[in-house]
Amino acid sequence: MSKSITIAVDAMGGDNAPDIVLEGIALALEQIPNIHILLFGDEKKLKKSVTSEYPSIEKNVTYKHTVDVVSSIDKPSQALRKGRKSSMALAIQSVKAGEAAVAVSAGNTGALMALSKFILRTMPNIDRPALCAPMPTIRGESVMLDLGANIECDANNLVQFAIMGSAYARTVLGLSNPSVGLLNVGVEDLKGKESIREAAEVLKEATHLPLKFGGFVEGDGVTSGEFDVIVSDGFTGNVALKTAEGTVKFISQLLKNAFSNSILSKIGYIFSKGAISNLKEHLDPNHHNGAVFLGLNGLVVKSHGGANGVGFANALMVASDMAQNDITNLIGNDLNEITDSEELAIVNSLK
Amino acid sequence: MSKSITIAVDAMGGDNAPDIVLEGIALALEQIPNIHILLFGDEKKLKKSVTSEYPSIEKNVTYKHTVDVVSSIDKPSQALRKGRKSSMALAIQSVKAGEAAVAVSAGNTGALMALSKFILRTMPNIDRPALCAPMPTIRGESVMLDLGANIECDANNLVQFAIMGSAYARTVLGLSNPSVGLLNVGVEDLKGKESIREAAEVLKEATHLPLKFGGFVEGDGVTSGEFDVIVSDGFTGNVALKTAEGTVKFISQLLKNAFSNSILSKIGYIFSKGAISNLKEHLDPNHHNGAVFLGLNGLVVKSHGGANGVGFANALMVASDMAQNDITNLIGNDLNEITDSEELAIVNSLK
Repeated sequence: MSKSITIAVDAMGGDNAPDIVLEGIALALEQIPNIHILLFGDEKKLKKSVTSEYPSIEKNVTYKHTVDVVSSIDKPSQALRKGRKSSMALAIQSVKAGEAAVAVSAGNTGALMALSKFILRTMPNIDRPALCAPMPTIRGESVMLDLGANIECDANNLVQFAIMGSAYARTVLGLSNPSVGLLNVGVEDLKGKESIREAAEVLKEATHLPLKFGGFVEGDGVTSGEFDVIVSDGFTGNVALKTAEGTVKFISQLLKNAFSNSILSKIGYIFSKGAISNLKEHLDPNHHNGAVFLGLNGLVVKSHGGANGVGFANALMVASDMAQNDITNLIGNDLNEITDSEELAIVNSLK
Repeated sequence: MSKSITIAVDAMGGDNAPDIVLEGIALALEQIPNIHILLFGDEKKLKKSVTSEYPSIEKNVTYKHTVDVVSSIDKPSQALRKGRKSSMALAIQSVKAGEAAVAVSAGNTGALMALSKFILRTMPNIDRPALCAPMPTIRGESVMLDLGANIECDANNLVQFAIMGSAYARTVLGLSNPSVGLLNVGVEDLKGKESIREAAEVLKEATHLPLKFGGFVEGDGVTSGEFDVIVSDGFTGNVALKTAEGTVKFISQLLKNAFSNSILSKIGYIFSKGAISNLKEHLDPNHHNGAVFLGLNGLVVKSHGGANGVGFANALMVASDMAQNDITNLIGNDLNEITDSEELAIVNSLK
């Protein structure tokens, strides 16, 4: 039933490019054989690796030779100035030109965001694009946005993020009517910032949208899984994401210390190894890879810079899901509904 | 060397009051015998419990009979209207009157904050009080503020929080020159909100203060322990704190599932029990109890509502430490230094 999708891949981005990128393509093709890859990077080098190590992917790949590379320490402004002919920029450019349905890169986030915005521009009716990513939770997986594209957000931005996040949950998590919570410091109606309360008023009335607005959610809701989509301004979202990641590291360290503490606990570890590795797998960022910039005239997926082959394959599958379901179009339709609504007119008239 | 401290205790606040409160007093007296307790609550009931279950504390307690109680669901506005004669309010009132050096309550946070502000008022040179609490980290313990007293904060507020948090770290954690980080979305100078960048400029120049300003810290720094004091606006701080707490719960749940998954992992659990309980102890909120409202003309310590006896005893010891070291005075002195400084004048002149 699924149609063939062309994915533009930045082969030179990420800590272990291009090896991990090629391995990820090989792994993804086992799951989704009907994708075609435009491979942006050093053609000679890439061809050599593909021929010797990943001959199976050869027939699904078209090489797009590029010389420039955006480095992991380039600032967004430097990428915009010097990176226009980089593998990253040209992969995004191919989405704009309609040659690929989506671009995937494991390169520098700030540069990818800046180049994506510059090349693809923001969708009509979207004021600001947002960075959206899947998160592991007690119940499975949720998505959260904005994770750092926008430091300050107004009510309109938050409503648009709710629509975009719900489209992600529908296309990538396969939910028909995802639940949405607004990140706040309390669950009562009067809590928090004006912008959040206003966004809640709009979302409460927007019953025609394919999402179930559930009100406010506190920080502990980020990993509890009580909502499928968590919406926040980019400052708070970024801090919450990194706090959760840091806390996972913190407890992993404590666990490691605990298990190496005594002979008894070392024996315990041997018995528990299977159980612990299930836990590690559930928390492994490679299994929740595929952040995306939503709200642009075209799709760009960001893989973790340190992702392994499995992680990069995950990012490719997220990209394919979104392109298959034409997420940009879904968002556009939902936006039209909300833009025509009376509720948003009320909020706008207050400005 | 330590002097006798009088602590006003709200015996009626918290999930298991007054039992846990009395148990906490008994445990604290084993560590710090030279405290005297003003015990606010139902005198008849309290006397009966003390006589039958905690006779050892009798000589350190003076009963202060009160009838009204602030409930866990009372809103701050309700507490201000109806709760002026409650055990909580009268305990705070005794600090204002100079009868006690500090008040401790495990009751409703919003009500405690509102009553504390109303009764004690803000210190000279402090624009807004902040909620500060200890957090477990990889290296031990840090403190973080503001955890929710102020939704939006300007540069001045953040500088004042840095001074107040550093005074907490000096008196309660026993550090002579605590390191301070400002919570942000990146560590580079140009990142984040204007208010945070301005606060960083002031703190960078304030080398005469008894703190070591280390720049910006991202969300993963909340539990890494790289800074002794983490400073943030109350919205972000509250979300970060609750995200960390939620993530601890999330991983505990995964661990529980992992260990009950198979016979093998159950055996593993038996061997690892000691190690796991060390870990639980390190994360147990009872061992990091004693949030405090800093910046008021008097000290108020908030115990977790669900704290056990050990937790409440910890809150009493934090209260005693702060009173012994006269933290309010320390903050006042540091504030005078910064208020006289040229850097703050520059920030103020920009407004």
